[in-house]
Formats: sequence, C-alpha cells, structure tokens
Amino acid sequence: MNGAEALVHTLVGGGIDVCFTNPGTSEMHFVSALDRVPGMRSILVLYEGVATGAADGYWRLAERPASTLLHLGPGLCNGLSNIHNARKASSGFVNIIGEHASWHLKYDAPLASDIEGLARPLSHWVKTAPNSKAVAPEAVNAILEARKGHIASLILPGDSAWEESAGPAATPALSVSSNQFGSIEAAVRALTSGEPTMLVIGGRAIRGEALELAGRIAGKTGATLATQFFSSRIERGAGRVPTYRIPYFVEPALKALAGFKHFVTVETREPVAFFAYPGKPSLLKPEGSQVHSICEPFDDGLSALRALADALDAKPSHALHQARGENLLPTGPLNQQSIAQILCALIPENGIVVDESVTTGRESIAITAGAAPHDWLQNMGGSIGYGLPVAIGAAVACPDRRVISLSGDGSAMYTIQALWTQARESLNITTLIFANRAYQILLAEYAGVGAGVPGPKAAAMMSLENPTMDFVAMSKSMGVPARRASTCEELIAALQANLKEPGPNLIEVVL
Amino acid sequence: MNGAEALVHTLVGGGIDVCFTNPGTSEMHFVSALDRVPGMRSILVLYEGVATGAADGYWRLAERPASTLLHLGPGLCNGLSNIHNARKASSGFVNIIGEHASWHLKYDAPLASDIEGLARPLSHWVKTAPNSKAVAPEAVNAILEARKGHIASLILPGDSAWEESAGPAATPALSVSSNQFGSIEAAVRALTSGEPTMLVIGGRAIRGEALELAGRIAGKTGATLATQFFSSRIERGAGRVPTYRIPYFVEPALKALAGFKHFVTVETREPVAFFAYPGKPSLLKPEGSQVHSICEPFDDGLSALRALADALDAKPSHALHQARGENLLPTGPLNQQSIAQILCALIPENGIVVDESVTTGRESIAITAGAAPHDWLQNMGGSIGYGLPVAIGAAVACPDRRVISLSGDGSAMYTIQALWTQARESLNITTLIFANRAYQILLAEYAGVGAGVPGPKAAAMMSLENPTMDFVAMSKSMGVPARRASTCEELIAALQANLKEPGPNLIEVVL
Repeated sequence: MNGAEALVHTLVGGGIDVCFTNPGTSEMHFVSALDRVPGMRSILVLYEGVATGAADGYWRLAERPASTLLHLGPGLCNGLSNIHNARKASSGFVNIIGEHASWHLKYDAPLASDIEGLARPLSHWVKTAPNSKAVAPEAVNAILEARKGHIASLILPGDSAWEESAGPAATPALSVSSNQFGSIEAAVRALTSGEPTMLVIGGRAIRGEALELAGRIAGKTGATLATQFFSSRIERGAGRVPTYRIPYFVEPALKALAGFKHFVTVETREPVAFFAYPGKPSLLKPEGSQVHSICEPFDDGLSALRALADALDAKPSHALHQARGENLLPTGPLNQQSIAQILCALIPENGIVVDESVTTGRESIAITAGAAPHDWLQNMGGSIGYGLPVAIGAAVACPDRRVISLSGDGSAMYTIQALWTQARESLNITTLIFANRAYQILLAEYAGVGAGVPGPKAAAMMSLENPTMDFVAMSKSMGVPARRASTCEELIAALQANLKEPGPNLIEVVL
Repeated sequence: MNGAEALVHTLVGGGIDVCFTNPGTSEMHFVSALDRVPGMRSILVLYEGVATGAADGYWRLAERPASTLLHLGPGLCNGLSNIHNARKASSGFVNIIGEHASWHLKYDAPLASDIEGLARPLSHWVKTAPNSKAVAPEAVNAILEARKGHIASLILPGDSAWEESAGPAATPALSVSSNQFGSIEAAVRALTSGEPTMLVIGGRAIRGEALELAGRIAGKTGATLATQFFSSRIERGAGRVPTYRIPYFVEPALKALAGFKHFVTVETREPVAFFAYPGKPSLLKPEGSQVHSICEPFDDGLSALRALADALDAKPSHALHQARGENLLPTGPLNQQSIAQILCALIPENGIVVDESVTTGRESIAITAGAAPHDWLQNMGGSIGYGLPVAIGAAVACPDRRVISLSGDGSAMYTIQALWTQARESLNITTLIFANRAYQILLAEYAGVGAGVPGPKAAAMMSLENPTMDFVAMSKSMGVPARRASTCEELIAALQANLKEPGPNLIEVVL
C-alpha cells in the first residue's frame, strides 16, 4: 500500500468520505487510490475555489469535515479566498495539496512554489508529509484539526504518495468538545438589571436547543435576542425562535444599538463595522454600554446558554416562536420587498438557503422570517464567490433537502463554474441570480466612504452593463436548466416549477 | 490631494497607465481618483485572476508594467495563481491591494486577513503604505521593482487612500539594465570544440536582435539552437530564425538531448522535467555533458549574445531563416496535425498567439513554424487558466494586432469570466477552445507517474463529459460572438471569418 492509498484509507476511517477534487499530475496517485480504497466520494470541480467553498458548505450542514484535493501551490491559491470565508465561519476541512517529489524541488520547475508559505496565513495547521510512512499519521493530525472547525492543509509530495507506506492510521474517536465557556455572573446581573440588554448569539448557538434556550432567556428577561448581520447558519422560520439582525451599514446599526446598556455575547463578539469609513466608528455599541462575553466564538455556546437559562430560571414557556407568515404572493414589478415576499411563501419546509444575494437580499431578508422552517447560511468572510460553491457542499451533505442559492450577478461570476458540478452530481439546488447588472452594493459603499458621486470612470467600474450577461444561456451551457423572470408572476411560476424538479436549476431574476 | 489621487498620479507619471481592476469598498477612493486624475485606463474584470493574467500579458508585449487593483486579502488570493505564472515569466507589474483603515484592523472584521503574508511568497516586493504621505514614495519603489520584471505588491489601507497626501512622487527614468552577463569563454570553447552543442535561449533572447544573433552563432558553429518547452514569448514564423523546442515528456526529452556534450544557456537554465516521475530523472541532459551559462534568466542576454557572436565571428550570412510554410489547407477530421496546419496557414502577419492549448497543441506546434511572422506566448508557471486573461493584456498592449488565444476546454473554465472583459473592451481576440471534453493531458500523466490504467473513479476525475459544455452558448452569454467547428472545413471557414471581424470572437473546436 503506497502513501496515497494509506491517506485515503485514513481519511475514510476518520470520517472524511467526501473529497472535492481538482487534481493534476502530482495528485494522480491519490486519484488512483480512489479506485482501490472504497468509501471516498470524489466530486470533480472545474476550479479550486469551488472545492474549498463546497467543503465549507458541507461542514455547515453535515457538522463534520470533508476534504479537498488541490494541485500544488497554484491550485491552493485558487482555493484560498473560499478558505478565508470558511475560516471566518469556523468550518473545518482537510486540504490535500499535491507537491513535486522531494528530490525535484531544487530544480525550481515551473509549478514549484512555497506551498507552506501560501497555506500558512489562512490555515490553522500546515504540514508537509516528509515521506510515505508519515502520510497516514499526519493525516490523523489533520483530521483532528479539521474536526475542531479548523483549516488543515496537508501537503503531499509525489514520492510520499507513491512510495510504500506503513498502512493507514486510526483517528481517535471524535473528542467531545470541552464544554468550555466563560463566567455567566456578569451576564446574569445584566439580564436582571432592568437595563436594556441585547443577547447576541452566533456560531452554533443559533440553532437547535441553543437557539431555543436563548429564546427562553430573552423571553424571561425582556432582552432583545439578536444575531450579527452575517451568521454561518441560522435555523429560522415558522416555529423557531426569531432573532433580530443587526444592520450592515454603520448609521442604522448605531441607531439600532443606541439605548442598550449591556451586550451579552455567545459564540460571537461585540458588533463591529464590516468596513472602515472616514469619520465613522468601528465599534457599534453606544458609549457607556458594556459587553459581557459568556462564550467566545467556537467555544461551547450550548452549555453556556444552559447554565444561563438555569441561573435565570428561564422556562420553555418563556420562549417566543415565530408564526408562519401570510402566504400573500405579490404581483407586478420585482423589487427587494416583493422578492422577499415570494421567498417567504415558497421556501420549502426544511429548505437550505445559501445567501449571497448582496444588495437584493441584504436589507429585506427579515420579510422571510415567517417562511416554513429552514436553514439560512451567510458569508462570514466577505469574499464574494462563496454562494454557488457552498450550495454544492450543502446539497451533498443533505441530499434530501432543497438548497436555494441566492446570488448577485457580480458575485455569481466569481465561481460560475460551480454550475457544472451541480449538474454533474444532479444536486438539488435552485439558484436565483439577481441580475441588477451592477456591483450595486458598491454604489452605496462609494457614498459611504465619502468618495462623493461617481464620475464616468468610477461608475463604469461598478457597472455590469455592456455587455449584459445572459445567465439563462450560461447556465444551460453548463448543463443546468434555466428560466428567466422579470415580474413577480414570472418568478413565482419559475420558482414553483424549479422547486419541484429534481436536480439543479436556475432562475435569472432580471431587476 | 488624497493618497489615492497621489497614487494614480504617481503611477501614470511612472509610465503605468493601465489598471486591471476588480474593486470593492476599500478601493473606492482609488476608483474615485480615476475620474480626477487623467491618464489611467481602468479595465474592469469579473475575477481577479483575470486582472493578474492580463497584467502578465501586457508586460510581455508592451515590455512595461501595468497595474492591478485587488480587493483586500481575498482579492489578492484570487489573483495569486496568475501572479505565480507571471513571476515565472518574469513579467513585472504593480498590484494595488486595498486594506481596511489601519484603526479598523484590530477588530478582525470579516475581510481582515494577513495580506502581507499572503502576498510575500509570490511577490518580489511587498509593502503596506503606513500613511497617506507614504503612498506616493512607496508607489515609486513599486514601479521601479515592476520595471525589473518583478511582482510588486503595494497594500493601501483605507486611511492611507483617503487622507491628505503630500502629492505625487516622480519615478526616476527607466534605469537601463546593467548589461550583466557571465563569462563567455567556456561557451566559446564548447561551440568551437567540434563536439555536439546545444544553444538554449530563453527570456528576451528569443526575439529581435538577440534571436538573430543566436541564429548566426548556431549557423557559424553548427550548434543546435533550442528553446525550452515553454517560453514567455518567441518571435517565430517565416523570415525568423527557427528554434528547436525541447520536448515536454521525459522520455522524448532524454532522447532529444542524448549525444549533446555541451549546453550553452542564455537567459534560461539547463532543461529540467516539468514534473517528477517515479524512477525518472529531473535533469534532462545526458551524463557527462556540461552546462555553460553565459547569462542567467533575466540578465542581459542580448549583450551576452553580441559578445559571443563577436568572439565567434558569426556574421549575418550565417543565420538560417525559416521559409514560409506551404499553405495547404487540410480537409476532413480535426486532429492535432490538421489543426496545426490550419493555424500555419491562417495565423495573420504580426499575429500574437497565446498558447494554452495543452494536449491539442502541445506536440504539434512545430507544424506552425512556417506561418506568417508572429509572436508565440506560453505559460511559464504551469497553472492553467492563464490563456484567456493573458490574451486580454496582449490585446490591450497591441490594439492593432490580432490575438489568437488557444485554450483547452478544461483550462478555459478556470478563468472563463475573461470573455466578458474581452467583449466590454472590444479587444481583437479570437479564442479557440479545443473541446476534447477531458483533462486529456492527465491521462498521459496518469500513466507517466506509474499509476497504471485508471479505474472508473479515477477516469471520472479526468473526464469533462456529463454534462458536456456548450462553449458557443457560454461565449455568447458573455457577449462574445461564437461559432462551432467539427471538421477542417468548418474550422477554416470559422477562422477566416473570425479573423476579419473586429473585436473578440470564439470558436469551439469539437474534437
């Protein structure tokens, strides 16, 4: 058994049985091992950013790591921005990065680069397997890292892959998290002070029992239950505990937080501005208010909320639950509000929404609060091009659920190759491209940073006109059936049809 | 004048008047400055890998640097693999990378990352402008680096961009290169020894006077004049000095070099294998042969060849020149040979060929040696997805010349967004997509690394069937007119039509 076979065995044995793959010559022994070692589903992508984004989406739904297979330093480079997004979401996975055989490196062949140097800034763990016998033990270390929600990058030189190994290595059973969280005393005092308090939850604390407990605490104490503008995964919709979303832009965020004296944070930190703006603050809380962290990001928010609910004697009956929204389908022109109303009515029960809707969905998503219960995934790292790939990972993790992937036109074009993999794997993904034919968000940001009114050259840098893109044709060209919608009636009809069809499909929503 | 305006002034003053751009919020002051500072052509791209590849292509033809505008760490990440390719080609340009305002960094906002750490492995020069007054002087340093064929990465925090500057800074006149090269004595001895000698030229030594001098030297001494398998830019075709291309695969390369006793190298190093293979050597020269470097990569090959030609008394009459190939247009099925014959006949005078043809063009390009005189550009870093972007840069640098961009289907999908920018800028680019519907080269590599015969899972990782892509529809969806060709007759007709039409167009060549 060579090093590559030992690696695949070790990954599968350690619970990593999906690999998002874009291999080259230096990875051929890994590819070859897929035929001899059972249990690994290998999914081909046309670009590495699709692989890393898919691994992010897989983690968020499956709650366990996948792997990626990347072709040397440049293959890693192409995956880095979605690794950045995954890292900010605390999504763990193992990158297998091919490398030249050790004895070839000194000749500085065309593809030679400093892979460790490229991997380090965005990985929690980086290691080059020094020989074929070290591959399996290092894979175990990588798996253990990834299970913590970390980015593990295992570099696999050709000779480590093709030479004889000592066989696979066993990964210890999933270590239960440490139940680690901070002191709840200050939070209890704040929540019982009678002063306006916001309970801000993030990470895994926005779903399941944790969300329910947060709802009880808010109901019992009168605190406002909130999430950051972006969260990695929220369970929301009818029957769930609703949360208030802190606004994106600085001015409305300051206004929303004004008056609060305390912020109790769980698996997140105090709200900060997404970008810096001249003369505007980075911190959004009002002066004189206090932040009480009971659980740092990626610590054990569930245990923290259990302790807090116990201390406050918050009971199930204290929790408020979202009512189902009225299914009033709008007619006429499409705009942010009518699109959100249509989604509220049509998101299917147990659907998964991957939100990269940027301008179109950014301020109107509250309208969908009363949709059928669903998961809502957002971009934690701010690097666009996350949506279409994350939808792949979510659909692979949950083949029985429908994924609705919302994307701006500008953001969709970052990783548009993802559509081909959606077709190849017959994934149940309905993509909506909001074609406003601009980097619309930048028009607001341009004013926000005090740059004034764009002149012709600046305006051209934010326009996606000339030529306009035809997303219906583009989608079909990669094997994904597509429709176009320009009115509410058309979007409703297209969405109703698409949600019924198995496999992927797409709607170009012309705005 | 704020820092961003001073930066644009300084770039333009320093001869950098093209910027390949994909901006975000943190770059809005730079974008705004474009309207107030004349002289900078800003070209919008939909993905950063298109920007960096275009800057590479621009350098290769214009022989001076362009700039890119990238959105923070993730924007840089998306451009890194084509930066890798450019670095290996010694193409210089200045990356302007936006960053949060300095005072915002400590809050670890979503887009915060270690930009310097990400830039360093592939940049020759990295600097964060510490304040608005430092922007222009640091831009001068970046320009001077880029002029050397280096990658310069200037990180521009928001406050350095929007606060008051001390105005632009002047870049010193282009410093003439140092005429640096090594001793020619050993090379003279080798070339006059009567023993088989190969003169291997690279870098800027494969064009103009340098190529002519190399031809004289080869003619006078009987040496074989050769280039590496990949070169950044070759002037070739009828009337030019022809060169022998050292093969890609190890076995034919060993065979081709067997018998040579001396290798004289100019602006390149001794031939090495592209990849490592079990049991095969990395160095391709025969045992007992000697390498005589008279000029390291990116030193002054022209001066070295002048000295060598003088020492050998090589005269213009000694040079062999390529005859025009017969324009026999093939008929019937398309294959590597017939495609190359068609290109030989139809490449227009003074055309620019950007070659990412991978399997389809890899072994048959010698057939085009007798085409009308043209430039031929290849990928020096081995990271696919270089071709469509490099074609943009070449077309921007040479608006009066036709660019022919040859791409595999797999490689085209890496940076397919480039088509939109080609349409937007009405660039004279004819793209040929060779649709063999596979990562065909990997089938050869799979055997080459000793992985045997691919089983079903491995074979699936190299297939681009299921679904097949429709490049005609995809191209049109981004505004580039397209045709399909499945026979020689169809390809000839399509190419003849496309070469006459101004602006970009595309042919899907179905194999």
